Amino acid sequence: MPVETSSTNRLPEPSFSLRRRWTEKQAISYLMQQGVENPGVISLAAGLVDPGSLPVEETRQAVRELLADDRRAREVLQYGTTQGAQTLRQQLLGHLARLEGCSVEDLGIDAEQLILTTGSQQFLSLVADALIDPGDICLVAAPTYFVFLGVLNGLNACTIAVDTDENGMDPDALEAQLIRLEADGRLDRVKLIYLVSYYENPTGLCLSAARRERIVEIAKRWSKFHRLYVLEDAAYREMRYDGPVLPSVWGFDGSRESVILAQTFSKSFSPGLRVGYGVLPRDLIAPICDRKGNEDFGSANFNQHLIATVMQRGLYAPHVEKVRDSYRNKRDCMLRAIDTHFAGIEGVTWVHPHGGLYVWMTLPDHMETGFTSPLFRQAANVEGVMYVPGELCYGGEKASRPSHQMRLSFGVEEPSKLDEGTRRLANAVRAVV
Amino acid sequence: MPVETSSTNRLPEPSFSLRRRWTEKQAISYLMQQGVENPGVISLAAGLVDPGSLPVEETRQAVRELLADDRRAREVLQYGTTQGAQTLRQQLLGHLARLEGCSVEDLGIDAEQLILTTGSQQFLSLVADALIDPGDICLVAAPTYFVFLGVLNGLNACTIAVDTDENGMDPDALEAQLIRLEADGRLDRVKLIYLVSYYENPTGLCLSAARRERIVEIAKRWSKFHRLYVLEDAAYREMRYDGPVLPSVWGFDGSRESVILAQTFSKSFSPGLRVGYGVLPRDLIAPICDRKGNEDFGSANFNQHLIATVMQRGLYAPHVEKVRDSYRNKRDCMLRAIDTHFAGIEGVTWVHPHGGLYVWMTLPDHMETGFTSPLFRQAANVEGVMYVPGELCYGGEKASRPSHQMRLSFGVEEPSKLDEGTRRLANAVRAVV
Repeated sequence: MPVETSSTNRLPEPSFSLRRRWTEKQAISYLMQQGVENPGVISLAAGLVDPGSLPVEETRQAVRELLADDRRAREVLQYGTTQGAQTLRQQLLGHLARLEGCSVEDLGIDAEQLILTTGSQQFLSLVADALIDPGDICLVAAPTYFVFLGVLNGLNACTIAVDTDENGMDPDALEAQLIRLEADGRLDRVKLIYLVSYYENPTGLCLSAARRERIVEIAKRWSKFHRLYVLEDAAYREMRYDGPVLPSVWGFDGSRESVILAQTFSKSFSPGLRVGYGVLPRDLIAPICDRKGNEDFGSANFNQHLIATVMQRGLYAPHVEKVRDSYRNKRDCMLRAIDTHFAGIEGVTWVHPHGGLYVWMTLPDHMETGFTSPLFRQAANVEGVMYVPGELCYGGEKASRPSHQMRLSFGVEEPSKLDEGTRRLANAVRAVV
Repeated sequence: MPVETSSTNRLPEPSFSLRRRWTEKQAISYLMQQGVENPGVISLAAGLVDPGSLPVEETRQAVRELLADDRRAREVLQYGTTQGAQTLRQQLLGHLARLEGCSVEDLGIDAEQLILTTGSQQFLSLVADALIDPGDICLVAAPTYFVFLGVLNGLNACTIAVDTDENGMDPDALEAQLIRLEADGRLDRVKLIYLVSYYENPTGLCLSAARRERIVEIAKRWSKFHRLYVLEDAAYREMRYDGPVLPSVWGFDGSRESVILAQTFSKSFSPGLRVGYGVLPRDLIAPICDRKGNEDFGSANFNQHLIATVMQRGLYAPHVEKVRDSYRNKRDCMLRAIDTHFAGIEGVTWVHPHGGLYVWMTLPDHMETGFTSPLFRQAANVEGVMYVPGELCYGGEKASRPSHQMRLSFGVEEPSKLDEGTRRLANAVRAVV
């Protein structure tokens, strides 16, 4: 037999797939783990939600109802379908109609176009997986949600950063990129425009209504080789504390062919249940469901029925109101803390967000904020406070990424800790200035 | 501007990724949906579990405990980690030790090597994703679990079917394939040997202990270019009704470097909670967790704590005993029904399974069982009974796949329906014979 290796030799190394080699550890995994494991450090980093606002009583009530009757209990403990529980998808049509300010009929979709996933993260990942080959292009705001950038990198996609200002992604800059890509003969590789449309993670800014409409028009007009999709990540849509109620990007897509909408119950209800959902143009239903069939053939049926019960019993809307009140208070507390503790440090600016979980802070140009920077080490190891380095939130060329910004979250910590964390952070900035 | 498409034109078609184009609708999605939507048809197809044996009271008790205290309730409604709840991973070490018949210390692993997933399906899919590039080779039993074949096809992997007999995959045939692949210069593409080690889905057969040991030895010896992994799918391990207690394939991998073990609570407890898990050789921890970080950064934390509580309170083992009793009875009922209703139909044989959920039936050579065959149509449309066509369960060359077999499940239907479904199936066979 043509075998030479003896059993006492060390085995050779594994040989991983290209996809594994493209995949880096998600910084969010690292930060979430740090948050869970180091209760002494104040985390202005983790996107964990406020423990105090988690729906304990609502969950008790819904679970009691789900399990009260043996027959019903067995239904929810059984397998569901790949696409997700029909009862929740039906509820979601009403929910979306309320958010869009229209009737269910005027939504122009049916429950078949809804898919339930393990958080909206799985939905975003499935969309990318179904559309993007290595080298394909996704246009993203600069900065944008770093976890989705990780997903794109894991597919060896090419991310191109589009300039943004206080109204979100600039449509003129978007169009300029498309013109440039067409001139370079690369327009056929452009598959997606990714937008976090409400209280962007990390900046807290909203895309203005006028820009929403223009970007949909641009996506349709630039669908020359194939359909160019807009992936609207509306994770923070319901987390509005003040400021205008904005229509979704999806709402401007009259034909329902070009915008893919992702939403979730992780922020507005409970992330521990991991129920997210997406609204799909008809052409994408089978591709996304088939990919999900391979990945897990369905998320937890029990959890989907739990959320459906919460909505049916009218427990959801009042809970969201409570959540909003709580985060509004925490946002105010954090902004006050920044005013207080950063007073007198020159060249520091920050965004006042009207929703979401984040305050985006810009330090003087020379002050690096990355994981290996003196500031991060001073903050984490000396002061005991963590943040998300802003450079993680940029796609495009590495060299051109700003590295003097921070995403500060008021999500997980209670008000007194927000104040103390901000004080520690200001100390760290002063120490390395 | 170089734009010609007017907004009234129809938009062009989407352009999907290669991976989407490789992916077919999972037959299981189709069959599960049929099972859910057509309560009139008796399903000997769906791998749904027995509703009567679902753990209603156990779940009530565990949920009551989880939610009794506000602080604890908030912990389980919060995000968990990508790898899964530490408390359940710790419990699982004890559980595995009991199954292996050794102490936790003698397991030779720690909780870091355990990852919690959305059913074991997500674990299998993650392993394939991290190891397999298009064209890479996975050796599988003939027949084997068709859903995993779908996962492999979705990666454009090459599946090679290895002959099996009543003792499972034949190690001589496995080695002959490896010799042939080496001669063809393709050994460097061989990444995985996939085994359903207990009560194989679809055949109900077990790999014999001697073969388990030999296959591990073969995997190590043939790790010439890189580590050749064995992926042991032990989904039905705890579903033993009689016959010997077999050691796992994983147990024969003394160095814990070559065998990846997948298990689940879907069959032994509740599929609606979607909690599966895997045991990883150390080199695979980061690759699998990183891929999961991209896919969903963690399955439902609530559900993991629920299962942990069930185990901590000693509710799990007695429940598994009840489940076993119930399925043993249903298996006996189905075998009796086959004896009765197939009496006098020539050339029909079937396997007597000692565990799992399936009876594998072979019809005369000429009698096709596929979705488009006269038999399937007669069974589904005229008689009102569904089964899984055997041809779905074969990898390798399409032309060489047997097409006269059926997987019959006694999982979901109650005894009287099993009898009636078997009667209908025998009628369908008689009608097309």
